[in-house]
Amino acid sequence: MTVFQRAEYTGRIERVKQRMAAAGIDVLLCTDPANMNYLSGYDGWSFYVHQLIALALDDDEPVWIGRQMDAAGAKLTTFLRHENICGYPDDYVDSPQRHPMAFVAREFCARGWDKGRIGVEMDSFSLTARAHAQLEATLPYAELVDAQALVNWVRIVKSPAELAMMRVAAIIVARAMAAGIEAIEPGVRECDVVAKICSAQIGGTPEHWGDYPAALPSAPSGIKTAAPHLTWSGDRYAADTVTFLELAGCHHRYHAALARTVCLGRPPDGLAELAAIVTDGLEVALDAARAGRTCHEVEAVWRALITKKGHEKGSRIGYSIGLGYPPDWGERTASLRPEDTTVLQPDMCFHMILGMWRESWGYELSETFRVSAAGPPEVLTAFPRKLFARP
Amino acid sequence: MTVFQRAEYTGRIERVKQRMAAAGIDVLLCTDPANMNYLSGYDGWSFYVHQLIALALDDDEPVWIGRQMDAAGAKLTTFLRHENICGYPDDYVDSPQRHPMAFVAREFCARGWDKGRIGVEMDSFSLTARAHAQLEATLPYAELVDAQALVNWVRIVKSPAELAMMRVAAIIVARAMAAGIEAIEPGVRECDVVAKICSAQIGGTPEHWGDYPAALPSAPSGIKTAAPHLTWSGDRYAADTVTFLELAGCHHRYHAALARTVCLGRPPDGLAELAAIVTDGLEVALDAARAGRTCHEVEAVWRALITKKGHEKGSRIGYSIGLGYPPDWGERTASLRPEDTTVLQPDMCFHMILGMWRESWGYELSETFRVSAAGPPEVLTAFPRKLFARP
Repeated sequence: MTVFQRAEYTGRIERVKQRMAAAGIDVLLCTDPANMNYLSGYDGWSFYVHQLIALALDDDEPVWIGRQMDAAGAKLTTFLRHENICGYPDDYVDSPQRHPMAFVAREFCARGWDKGRIGVEMDSFSLTARAHAQLEATLPYAELVDAQALVNWVRIVKSPAELAMMRVAAIIVARAMAAGIEAIEPGVRECDVVAKICSAQIGGTPEHWGDYPAALPSAPSGIKTAAPHLTWSGDRYAADTVTFLELAGCHHRYHAALARTVCLGRPPDGLAELAAIVTDGLEVALDAARAGRTCHEVEAVWRALITKKGHEKGSRIGYSIGLGYPPDWGERTASLRPEDTTVLQPDMCFHMILGMWRESWGYELSETFRVSAAGPPEVLTAFPRKLFARP
Repeated sequence: MTVFQRAEYTGRIERVKQRMAAAGIDVLLCTDPANMNYLSGYDGWSFYVHQLIALALDDDEPVWIGRQMDAAGAKLTTFLRHENICGYPDDYVDSPQRHPMAFVAREFCARGWDKGRIGVEMDSFSLTARAHAQLEATLPYAELVDAQALVNWVRIVKSPAELAMMRVAAIIVARAMAAGIEAIEPGVRECDVVAKICSAQIGGTPEHWGDYPAALPSAPSGIKTAAPHLTWSGDRYAADTVTFLELAGCHHRYHAALARTVCLGRPPDGLAELAAIVTDGLEVALDAARAGRTCHEVEAVWRALITKKGHEKGSRIGYSIGLGYPPDWGERTASLRPEDTTVLQPDMCFHMILGMWRESWGYELSETFRVSAAGPPEVLTAFPRKLFARP
């Protein structure tokens, strides 16, 4: 029982095959769990063991290969015929003697896929160095070629059905953000705020359930806001400090992300001024994010504004977002930054995130948006765009 | 500001160096985020980009190399001298042109580490095939050797400070399990139960905050219990069905995991009988998990009991547990299964999980335990060991 109708998957497979044909790839081996889900519907927290789907250019559907115990989940979550769901025995798991890719290679031989060009996702965190070496050793007549992000570049343009998921995710993240901000006050522990946020992320709305975001909240307070990507602890919020929340909502593995900053009491010197500049920067950059523009042009608009105000930011201001599994809700394709020549197309979605980290505090502001056919983008996340004050 | 005192890290580094020396490794390159944390204290949700710590046999502390923006987090969470925290520019992130491992290789050259034997974690999901290929290409005079799980095998025996963390995690998971079971009843959505579970996991106790578990709850109901590793959805619990909860509590990245099964109304045929057998099997296998025994001997005790009762299980019944990051709270070392000759030592910790998946329903029961110096193990998770009935 898949999330989308079969035609959605058929279209995806067709578009992926076009790229495979252009790259001369006979069989595509996808280990990235988001790509596995995209092409088959497969969904389960089994991506801590080796697993993949393989799509042959001349087959109509992919083959799932994973741990035997997870074959039951593949039957429940994919549209695949059961002969296209292959489980390897449990003694391949975490074994120094047997590697699952040796099993995969035998399955490839049995299907006549051992002599052509096999595309693998060379820089996906789901394809280990040993997995690749094992494939090389066990498939001596095949040519392994890099197909990193081949499927991701198909995923970057969303279908109407996918956009519907992302709009739900955006509703959920706004509720989670509101729950978090409301709970912040001096003396409260960070973990108690995050407990409320996660409850809202997962409970969703009465109409829509919340799936687990591919990253848990960043919710640091005080000095810890000087860095991105710190999660939370049992520290208590203190008066006259800053905190930011960077969260996603998720629905059927589709994400919308949102960041806001909250000040408890007196803001540190420079914060209010920086917040105003960043808000202006967000607005001009969002307005620039139109179909036909490049990613670097969007970033340049932001950069020009903050440079004029005497600020700089050394990191990208956004990236493509959508379907994802831990550790990343980003799609690892286009980034809003210098040199990225990706041309924005309608129904691409980005998380534009403006994080400014100083010596002893930080400020974050973000929105998730969809590129429109004409005019400025549709901002999926609807939340007041300001520096919040608590309590 | 690290979680543990400096002596804890010094001892770990010493034990890792002993294994490095035995394996003839000059520099160990750890990409596994749990191993990075173990040797440096580093903690942040930055493991979606390439990052590592490198430990040279003749240095007293490791070097952290990661994304420039995360260097601030490394300064806040590790004990490393600032000259041992090296950030690569942001245009190395998700770039087809530049790979972070090229930056790493230059840093290795600058430190004179480009000619010896470099250990890498070949089957860690944090070392991609491309990362390895890039290191090979950029460090032509070094010999890359497989150091998969070298640090993990040091981690398998816990220190008193680590055991204290795991005991807190066990308290947390029991509260989360109680919150989940109490919320289950016909008509309630799975997501609303999981929202309560996650709130309890993260809120922790008044004394102890809850960290994010390395895997989110498995909380399937009905037919979905026929498979492991399905998470949850907006489905409503139905009368006369089964549901199981497989959860962890986490404190400062240390885990205790727990699984229990709940029956709503009339149990499916065979469930009550199976539950009784599995409970007996858990008890005899736990009792067998004593210092000096091997992993396969523990599994054999379980296997003998269920075979006598006419059942079988094709998968391992447990694995080493402790420090972890998504996607896995397991340590990828010892497994309780045939052929695993690991000898149990005091202060090793395991999650013994007995999952039995049938055609249309499943049953799970688990405990997290510590191997004692003598006698049966200390079961960390304290929760009634029965088939629960709701409402």
